[in-house]
Amino acid sequence: MRKCFPLLTVLLLNTLLLACGDRSDGAFSDPKVILIIGDGMDDQQITIARNYLVGSNGQLTLDQLPYRGAVQVQTVDEDDPSKPVYVADSANSATSMATGRVTATRRIATTAKTDEDLTTIMELAHAAGLGTGIVTTSSITDATPASFVAHISQRFCEGPTNMVGERSYGAFSIPVDCSSDYKANGGPGSISEQIAESDVDILLGGGTRHFEQSVEGNLGAMVIDIAELNGYMIIRDRQSLLGLDSDTKVLGLFSPNTMPVQMRGVGNAKAEPIQTIDGQVRMPEPFTCEPNPDFFGTPRLAEMTQAALRHLDDNRGFVLMIESASIDKQSHVRRPCGHIGELAQLDEALRVSLDYAAEHPETLILVTADHSHAAQIVDETSTFASLNFASPGHFARLITPDGAIMGINYATNDSPIMEYHTGSQVPIFGSGPGIDLLPTFMRQTDIFRIAARHLGLTDNADSSK
Amino acid sequence: MRKCFPLLTVLLLNTLLLACGDRSDGAFSDPKVILIIGDGMDDQQITIARNYLVGSNGQLTLDQLPYRGAVQVQTVDEDDPSKPVYVADSANSATSMATGRVTATRRIATTAKTDEDLTTIMELAHAAGLGTGIVTTSSITDATPASFVAHISQRFCEGPTNMVGERSYGAFSIPVDCSSDYKANGGPGSISEQIAESDVDILLGGGTRHFEQSVEGNLGAMVIDIAELNGYMIIRDRQSLLGLDSDTKVLGLFSPNTMPVQMRGVGNAKAEPIQTIDGQVRMPEPFTCEPNPDFFGTPRLAEMTQAALRHLDDNRGFVLMIESASIDKQSHVRRPCGHIGELAQLDEALRVSLDYAAEHPETLILVTADHSHAAQIVDETSTFASLNFASPGHFARLITPDGAIMGINYATNDSPIMEYHTGSQVPIFGSGPGIDLLPTFMRQTDIFRIAARHLGLTDNADSSK
Repeated sequence: MRKCFPLLTVLLLNTLLLACGDRSDGAFSDPKVILIIGDGMDDQQITIARNYLVGSNGQLTLDQLPYRGAVQVQTVDEDDPSKPVYVADSANSATSMATGRVTATRRIATTAKTDEDLTTIMELAHAAGLGTGIVTTSSITDATPASFVAHISQRFCEGPTNMVGERSYGAFSIPVDCSSDYKANGGPGSISEQIAESDVDILLGGGTRHFEQSVEGNLGAMVIDIAELNGYMIIRDRQSLLGLDSDTKVLGLFSPNTMPVQMRGVGNAKAEPIQTIDGQVRMPEPFTCEPNPDFFGTPRLAEMTQAALRHLDDNRGFVLMIESASIDKQSHVRRPCGHIGELAQLDEALRVSLDYAAEHPETLILVTADHSHAAQIVDETSTFASLNFASPGHFARLITPDGAIMGINYATNDSPIMEYHTGSQVPIFGSGPGIDLLPTFMRQTDIFRIAARHLGLTDNADSSK
Repeated sequence: MRKCFPLLTVLLLNTLLLACGDRSDGAFSDPKVILIIGDGMDDQQITIARNYLVGSNGQLTLDQLPYRGAVQVQTVDEDDPSKPVYVADSANSATSMATGRVTATRRIATTAKTDEDLTTIMELAHAAGLGTGIVTTSSITDATPASFVAHISQRFCEGPTNMVGERSYGAFSIPVDCSSDYKANGGPGSISEQIAESDVDILLGGGTRHFEQSVEGNLGAMVIDIAELNGYMIIRDRQSLLGLDSDTKVLGLFSPNTMPVQMRGVGNAKAEPIQTIDGQVRMPEPFTCEPNPDFFGTPRLAEMTQAALRHLDDNRGFVLMIESASIDKQSHVRRPCGHIGELAQLDEALRVSLDYAAEHPETLILVTADHSHAAQIVDETSTFASLNFASPGHFARLITPDGAIMGINYATNDSPIMEYHTGSQVPIFGSGPGIDLLPTFMRQTDIFRIAARHLGLTDNADSSK
């Protein structure tokens, strides 16, 4: 069944990317890349959000970008990196985008099996004198942002006290061992320590708890002290963010871990297993969404984006990664209003970015996802339900502003705790210089190459991988 | 939550489509449109097929087309057509593409609630003196092809004896009533009767059993006799197809109903419910794919495509719809090898179409899906499985040619018979004149308008719907 054209088409793709590079590379003295990542934002997620936010006849800002393609997500086996794995996590998929190299799940900018550090686009950009920024609604130490700035064998090693032991998810846990990454063992230390010692100009998100830990060896200092020693101004609330005006590096920490999401189901409703009572399927009660009271006072993703763009807007170019993290996290925990609201946050951050690009035509904007996710739109009360067949997983019936009901199914596994990712290709959108020359299909590592070429950076990634 | 920009963007979209029309409309004296529909062919389906057929580092022919966009599938409620429904079937989604109008599920080119006939692009093309063709691996009377040629209130009314009663799916059935469409009641008769009396120049696919029925009123003739009276040459086997050389209309019927698929799981393996034995999840045995012995002697979709293109290739332009139907049907019955093989058939038919277009630059090729489907790529043995959490639905572990295992999950409902569609946006691909002016996001009805404009046809569809 294997066809013989892949090599030819890979060559064609590289030619196209080169052509794109030829056009944008060097065309601007201050090239800018804004890479927006919707964690888990696949076609189902986008359609769920569109149907709810603007109606099935409407358009998100996303939908209006002039370029759209598809991205093959790639992952390899930790023990045998010549073998593909078909479902990614945010660590290896962000590593693909940050470094141009495919790795194994849970790895942060390191190679599978051999554990070698992979240079990130933020490091290349800084070395070339460009500005760098990271904005996220997760902890800044979480897999997606971490892969752009740190190098470690396992994503769970977010702070000095998290380097060995286990990572708990409710009733179960995953073993963690980053002991080879201890500074005492010649390693770079935990993710928060690496961030505290990094050159990234501005980092905004959650994760205070990973910075308010004693540094490795308990030298009488917390990680956040090291960040200050390394020149970071620390901000901790929305007012400081909105008023931000600093010539130094900035580390903004706005919540202990993941930032609160803006929307939730009324009364905190979420998807539930479908009950069968007296042999009859009883579909769950439909619900609508409401503002999440816990979000009050939390900076919006668009506000963090605005602040980062103001901070980076000088005569240098820059690369800025913006992540809406909880599209994924809310899909994991089967909360449709949660992931709809966080996709709305991404769309709003995109509008801010487009406004910036309108004044700065040297700005390349790419919007993509790291991997696909569990949620699916299904019949809300199907013929099958009337026949007592219904979702075997968790199910929500969402009342949309159009007065109709959208059925949303989560059924990748029967864990009471959480769903898991799926392995589909993901969408990519874009606008800016050279966008009309991008191929309509690419591998996830090509995103690194497209960004690097626009920034005029040397592409030192192995293009055969 | 409703934003106020949809109207503006709809206007922008129409402007873009108009611009496209300005470019291609009238530019060729013999404009040609090849519309290829992968039934149920969403991003998950494409990735499953790519991973298996060419490897996760490879590319399908699909992936190499110069244009790619997304399509919002739209459906309305039968009783209140002002209300959206979020999951389509092949009848209403094909009606969107064939007529430019949104309707309710199960309807074939008729309006929701009011049951008015909607003019199809095949009818408009014939009236304008252009050639018309339909090629499918389903019965020619099935929902997708039927929506391009017939008008009836319910898709199940495929032949004169199927107009009232019920449609069975294993243990359950759906009530059918097309009595208002009886000729005796002033209606157009069943789908096969409408096809037999149609002006479509060539129809190739399955469905003999719907044509070998006595016509309504039992006038001593079968539907197929009416087709012959109406000028159709009937062919029934692959040899006749390959040697086809006819100046008359052609009706090719190559199987009693849906045509056999080209691939199956070894030993007919398919997805199964996951067993838990002694409290331990036991994942199903992995399997690979093999040629389906029932496919022997069946015309390939590419061969039917080739024959249709030869038949239609004269000095007129034409519109040809080509459907790979069993991507959907094999996903319904949880057979991953089946849907992979049928996506390969679509890719091969696309290559034939591209070869034709290379010699005929007036050819616009569009490839899309009608709706998304159940299958998802998931971890084949996840951390969750080791914790005794696994898919609550049906699950397959497929050994790929790369020696890795791809987990495929089907869990939209717990029916022992079949899965159901999902409600995601679907991809659209294209090549040919004006393709660079197409928007990257559209509604499914826009496909009708794009095709009609390329063919220089009067667009009489209501563009507000």
